[in-house]
Amino acid sequence: MFKNKAYISIGSNIPPRRKFIDEATKRLRRDSNIALIKRSSIYETCPNGSNFDIRKRFLNGVVEIETSLGPSDLMSRLLGIERSLGRTDSKRCLDRAIDLDILLYNDDIVSNGDVVIPHPRMHERDFVILPLMEVSPDTVHPVIKKRIRDIYNAREMKVFTSPQAAYNHLFSEKISGKRIGFVPTMGYLHEGHASLLRRARRENDLVVLSIFVNPTQFSAGEDYKRYPRDLKRDARVARKEGVDVIFHPSASDMYKKDNSTRVDVEGLSENLCGRYRPGHFRGVATVVAKLLNVIPADVAYFGQKDAQQAFIIKRMIRDLNMAVKIKILPTVREKDGLAMSSRNRYLSAAERREAPVGYRSLILARKMIEKGEKRSEKVIRSMKDFVHRNSNAKIQYILIVDKDTLKDVKTVKGAVLIAIAFYFGGTRLIDNMIVN
Amino acid sequence: MFKNKAYISIGSNIPPRRKFIDEATKRLRRDSNIALIKRSSIYETCPNGSNFDIRKRFLNGVVEIETSLGPSDLMSRLLGIERSLGRTDSKRCLDRAIDLDILLYNDDIVSNGDVVIPHPRMHERDFVILPLMEVSPDTVHPVIKKRIRDIYNAREMKVFTSPQAAYNHLFSEKISGKRIGFVPTMGYLHEGHASLLRRARRENDLVVLSIFVNPTQFSAGEDYKRYPRDLKRDARVARKEGVDVIFHPSASDMYKKDNSTRVDVEGLSENLCGRYRPGHFRGVATVVAKLLNVIPADVAYFGQKDAQQAFIIKRMIRDLNMAVKIKILPTVREKDGLAMSSRNRYLSAAERREAPVGYRSLILARKMIEKGEKRSEKVIRSMKDFVHRNSNAKIQYILIVDKDTLKDVKTVKGAVLIAIAFYFGGTRLIDNMIVN
Repeated sequence: MFKNKAYISIGSNIPPRRKFIDEATKRLRRDSNIALIKRSSIYETCPNGSNFDIRKRFLNGVVEIETSLGPSDLMSRLLGIERSLGRTDSKRCLDRAIDLDILLYNDDIVSNGDVVIPHPRMHERDFVILPLMEVSPDTVHPVIKKRIRDIYNAREMKVFTSPQAAYNHLFSEKISGKRIGFVPTMGYLHEGHASLLRRARRENDLVVLSIFVNPTQFSAGEDYKRYPRDLKRDARVARKEGVDVIFHPSASDMYKKDNSTRVDVEGLSENLCGRYRPGHFRGVATVVAKLLNVIPADVAYFGQKDAQQAFIIKRMIRDLNMAVKIKILPTVREKDGLAMSSRNRYLSAAERREAPVGYRSLILARKMIEKGEKRSEKVIRSMKDFVHRNSNAKIQYILIVDKDTLKDVKTVKGAVLIAIAFYFGGTRLIDNMIVN
Repeated sequence: MFKNKAYISIGSNIPPRRKFIDEATKRLRRDSNIALIKRSSIYETCPNGSNFDIRKRFLNGVVEIETSLGPSDLMSRLLGIERSLGRTDSKRCLDRAIDLDILLYNDDIVSNGDVVIPHPRMHERDFVILPLMEVSPDTVHPVIKKRIRDIYNAREMKVFTSPQAAYNHLFSEKISGKRIGFVPTMGYLHEGHASLLRRARRENDLVVLSIFVNPTQFSAGEDYKRYPRDLKRDARVARKEGVDVIFHPSASDMYKKDNSTRVDVEGLSENLCGRYRPGHFRGVATVVAKLLNVIPADVAYFGQKDAQQAFIIKRMIRDLNMAVKIKILPTVREKDGLAMSSRNRYLSAAERREAPVGYRSLILARKMIEKGEKRSEKVIRSMKDFVHRNSNAKIQYILIVDKDTLKDVKTVKGAVLIAIAFYFGGTRLIDNMIVN
């Protein structure tokens, strides 16, 4: 539409921050000399170092525009928008209802009294590079002559195997004011993990990924040894998602020979998978307690797919007064509905085709409940029939439980968790759905 | 000896800090115009705010002297000692092999080119007031006209009941660079607790005392309800020992109704008291895990009297990767050898007279082992006989266990823990000794 392409950074640290950003975006869109092409996700950052004060934290994003305006004219439009949204320069370094800057303008290099383009040090700043990576990874920075993608990839990603070294590094980052987001995993990352990492990236200054196949949560005869591992591939995914630190200990880094401390979350651990995998959740709770002591996170991210695990950890964090928030994000699914899982790779082609049957049985259950069915037994029987009719899966359990206590409910009332565990040969899959 | 009394502060932040302080003290003592009367304990402090760098932390103390020198002459002697110990003023604010200052000189008020007495802001500084309180609490500050004792008592002592509020306050102190020492107790403080608080005071910038009679470590029929409580008295002791923060939650502040998370330290919890108080150490481990999450301590202090408890907590901290060090300090005893305990108050006068029998049986055991007896059975039998001959106590157990595993040993070898639990009526007492 217009011949010049520019990238504008947009930030706010005065509530309502999101609203200010949306309003500024709207005013850009409304300008007849500007066409708004794309806007990145909005990231929460702590741009100026040590700063625990939530009121001073910025939300930041980047917009791609096309425009007929030259750099100086564009800049005065941006200043106009800033002023119209109440920005004064008196408290310049502290409070900014809205902060607009030209990052790049074509591949021009400009430096005069009004504007400096590219924006100085933009290439050193995560709160510019991360959103810009989303919007236009192949744009070349005209001064340092590198693609955004390459600047992004050159960001240092640290890998720790020692719990003490990881803690020392992360605690010193934390006291410098950084908010730490943490995604604990067993590795072999898939799109479900990636969605957690992306959310962590948007909401924190520093993203930590742990990769640890925890032996204590596997029983004898389970797949501990053959659980898929591929650190190189995981590191590529981590880099792509903007991870700052990977914590990847060995079993002996995590467990001294005479270790003997166990964390149990009673009640919540007994039903569902806990009934069929004795000791599993004790292993999970213990290792997550350890990980949360090593990684002084502000927020930890878990997937809804392992709903029972997430609820148990949430309870543990509350009961043990751990200083971390937990966020549980939706299950990510393949196109045919199969919940993403590292174990899906065990499936043969035929099994893979049948595997969505679990998810489809959950949808069937939801429909029955929405239509008024209240008897758990009836819903479960229909799910079982459905699975048997449509696959060779062996059902381990189908249960309908209270969302808070995880105890079986005879009659559906309030929020329930419907959960299924089933086998194809030696491959165990789980899935679940919350129905209100 | 000399007519003028003065108080000198003495500090060092360059290793070997203790040696520098001792050397400076020696040089003061050697001066023929100075008589050294008293020196305080040495405190570790972080005098200038945010400072995690151990190399910059100060050791501080105060000496009381008498001298024939006037203030200016005294000051030049101090400067001479500083120079002779290698202090240069080039990096004045950072590195000080030795730092000597006149705090008070009689009740003179002096301000000239050489010296300012009393030392400015000395009354605001814990690292002056705490050691001065030890050396001369009744000296009056000539400018603010208050006794050191009153300045000390006017230091703010915060009391928190909410875990979240306590954490918020202490975490912000921690990130400002303060080292936090923590003494967890069930209150009704005695000299044993006071010894922990004093050690914590000397080694940390901020001392936290928790007072919480934890219901989950008492079985039905034990003394949870009648366990002695006296917050007013405890607060007086705390203030006397320089506590900065008391954490004093209620049971409902600590335990939500549906709490269900338990921490077990297996192995170590099974013998000794664990054998007779089922669930006790699970309650202890769980509440200490909680307390250590609420109080972001650098060091936690426990008494040797509850040796099994201390060992269990040390193991838990290691196994769960908690970022805190634990120090176990010697049992403090009454003059007749009875280990200090809040439960001693339950004893009748007659029982109190007999109560040291437990300690005396431990001494007997140590003597036997030192003389070459290796058979645990023989030692235990002699202890039992001794207790029965000398008191009406009912023995619950006498055990000799390996110091690391806490498992019974048949033959004494290496370090063993000899432990006794006995009753006078409904009052249960314990004591122990480590013998190598």
